[in-house]
Amino acid sequence: MKAVGLVVEYNPFHNGHRYHLQQAQEITGADVTVAVMSGNFTQRGEPTIVDKWSRAAAAVANGVDLVVELPLFYAVQPAHRFAAGALRLLSSLGVQSIVFGAEHPQWNFQRLVKAEELFNQESFNKYNATYATQFNQQLKAQTGVTLVDPNDILAFAYTKATMQNDYPFELIPIQRQGSNYHDNTITGKIASASAIRDALVANNDLYRQAVPQTMADSLAQVKAVPSWQSLYPLLRNQLIQAPISYLQSTYLMAEGLEYRMKEAAQRSLDFAAFMKYTKTKRYTYAHLLRVSLYTLLQVSQKEVQMHTQSPYLHVLAFNQRGREYLHQVKKQVEIPLITKVDQGLRDSLLNLDYRAGKLYQSFTSIEQDLKHPPVIIN
Amino acid sequence: MKAVGLVVEYNPFHNGHRYHLQQAQEITGADVTVAVMSGNFTQRGEPTIVDKWSRAAAAVANGVDLVVELPLFYAVQPAHRFAAGALRLLSSLGVQSIVFGAEHPQWNFQRLVKAEELFNQESFNKYNATYATQFNQQLKAQTGVTLVDPNDILAFAYTKATMQNDYPFELIPIQRQGSNYHDNTITGKIASASAIRDALVANNDLYRQAVPQTMADSLAQVKAVPSWQSLYPLLRNQLIQAPISYLQSTYLMAEGLEYRMKEAAQRSLDFAAFMKYTKTKRYTYAHLLRVSLYTLLQVSQKEVQMHTQSPYLHVLAFNQRGREYLHQVKKQVEIPLITKVDQGLRDSLLNLDYRAGKLYQSFTSIEQDLKHPPVIIN
Repeated sequence: MKAVGLVVEYNPFHNGHRYHLQQAQEITGADVTVAVMSGNFTQRGEPTIVDKWSRAAAAVANGVDLVVELPLFYAVQPAHRFAAGALRLLSSLGVQSIVFGAEHPQWNFQRLVKAEELFNQESFNKYNATYATQFNQQLKAQTGVTLVDPNDILAFAYTKATMQNDYPFELIPIQRQGSNYHDNTITGKIASASAIRDALVANNDLYRQAVPQTMADSLAQVKAVPSWQSLYPLLRNQLIQAPISYLQSTYLMAEGLEYRMKEAAQRSLDFAAFMKYTKTKRYTYAHLLRVSLYTLLQVSQKEVQMHTQSPYLHVLAFNQRGREYLHQVKKQVEIPLITKVDQGLRDSLLNLDYRAGKLYQSFTSIEQDLKHPPVIIN
Repeated sequence: MKAVGLVVEYNPFHNGHRYHLQQAQEITGADVTVAVMSGNFTQRGEPTIVDKWSRAAAAVANGVDLVVELPLFYAVQPAHRFAAGALRLLSSLGVQSIVFGAEHPQWNFQRLVKAEELFNQESFNKYNATYATQFNQQLKAQTGVTLVDPNDILAFAYTKATMQNDYPFELIPIQRQGSNYHDNTITGKIASASAIRDALVANNDLYRQAVPQTMADSLAQVKAVPSWQSLYPLLRNQLIQAPISYLQSTYLMAEGLEYRMKEAAQRSLDFAAFMKYTKTKRYTYAHLLRVSLYTLLQVSQKEVQMHTQSPYLHVLAFNQRGREYLHQVKKQVEIPLITKVDQGLRDSLLNLDYRAGKLYQSFTSIEQDLKHPPVIIN
């Protein structure tokens, strides 16, 4: 069986995702579609609108054959690490091609990646600008191009990870359809994920036209939309109570950010005020959300290093074709293939995902990992 | 000026406390009354029904001349440490006598303390019984008496601390008046603090007859009564996310309790279920509440040792007589006398009380310590 891979968040799964899936199948003629999907927290470090099981189930109900989880230490990362982690898993799963949306699919991403080799690394130490800004200044000088749109940035990262690891994938960028990521109105059957989330938060039923029925059913059950505002009391207490030396060991915590965040927590009773105090030109909003999440999960630099070197495939959902594909690849997969989390895995390999699931459980009351079987849709 | 000392929680300040105060003044003929009061958390490790400033203000409005805070590392402790800490402060403040309620004021507490010297310390290692149970078995064998009632236990502890430190106090136990501590009905003007709290939780206005007007006004403003049930999400996340080695360093965490509490947090979405899973014959409910609080405040064994050796007097409220007394003693007080917490004190001497105040702030939104001046009532 020939497989095409997708890297997704499905937050939530919507009609645009279904269209993308159909295109991937048509272009590649693959027999099976494999999606690597973020778990309960997005790349930006935010809790997803519904849990990973509901999103994986909606994906399989709408044509994806197999969904595996992108572990948190790969998923909640800047684009280059997110992409590298996802492709590491798709490589283990033996997919032949990867189809992904890009704002400029016509660009020669290989040429852009090669240009990066000529960058002056020493000039990346300006503390009044984000890494992305400094990166683009150099890319523009070398190629005339700047990477601004989120899917172009990911396309660059997929290309780079493939070149660095000599993956045998065919990389197929396609034009992103319909609404722009940042477009927040719903006018037809295709809307951005953020427009759909905003509609749900605003109790605007228009979102139902932009998602398949299975996803609409899950979204209709959301009572309070998971948000950083409701996680903030936990973050605030952690930042106030933990000693600075302990906060310093947190993954991504650097350059004295621990002092700034502690002070911000002491002063702020809500998340908006906290972020306003914490934000500087040096860090993006997404970076600060990721640091906040790693702080809340008490994840150390060491722990991420250890996990990054021990990837695994946690199967969330599949249909009959997905099952056959799993059966086909399971002998050659060189990393653990996990269909059920027992206490041993909870305390070792999957510990970080388990802890993230317990945090997410504060929104839903539903156990996320321990003994949870994959969703099977026939 | 001759001063009488009281050791109190005033949770809340009620008519029984006013009666106790008047008795203390009559019996001793003191010119000034000094109360050492728990802050925002009680000896049992529970958040107080209203904050320390309101309770101190009600006390001074009703006849106490000076209220200083019993720091958390003394206050949230079993009886013997609570009593020792409180008497350490009253000794610094130069009081001549201490008046306290007891269920059996006629007992010779000095004789009971001396009996303890004959105890067999090795037999205190039964893991299926609390320390108190094992203590009483030995006390009964030596003296025929058992210490069961909470104020008798404190009376014993005050006597022991006075004897051990050769304090020059006169200790004056008096009969506790009115309702029993555990009596939960309000029938007259005297009711137990717990009956008053229960009435407030039940929205039963009867509590108003049992407290002075100033306290009734503060209680009327309580929207949601501070409780462990609402602190539990913070505790749950801390127990789930922190590594076992970090939990092990928590003050009072011993004998593998960290594993039991982590497992209980993973299984339980509410505090009642958590405590049910955690409780054993080895530990009292109060002990587990105290361990829970120290876990939430991330207080280490080391930190408590350090603080215990550096006591201070944080002045919460006073009237004109209290001011005069402070003026009289301030030259001979050998520990820091603090009337306002600045950033330096926040980050050093008063750090633990400050952090407890930030936790308590989650109930009231009101800053508890930083730059908070004493309440002055003339």
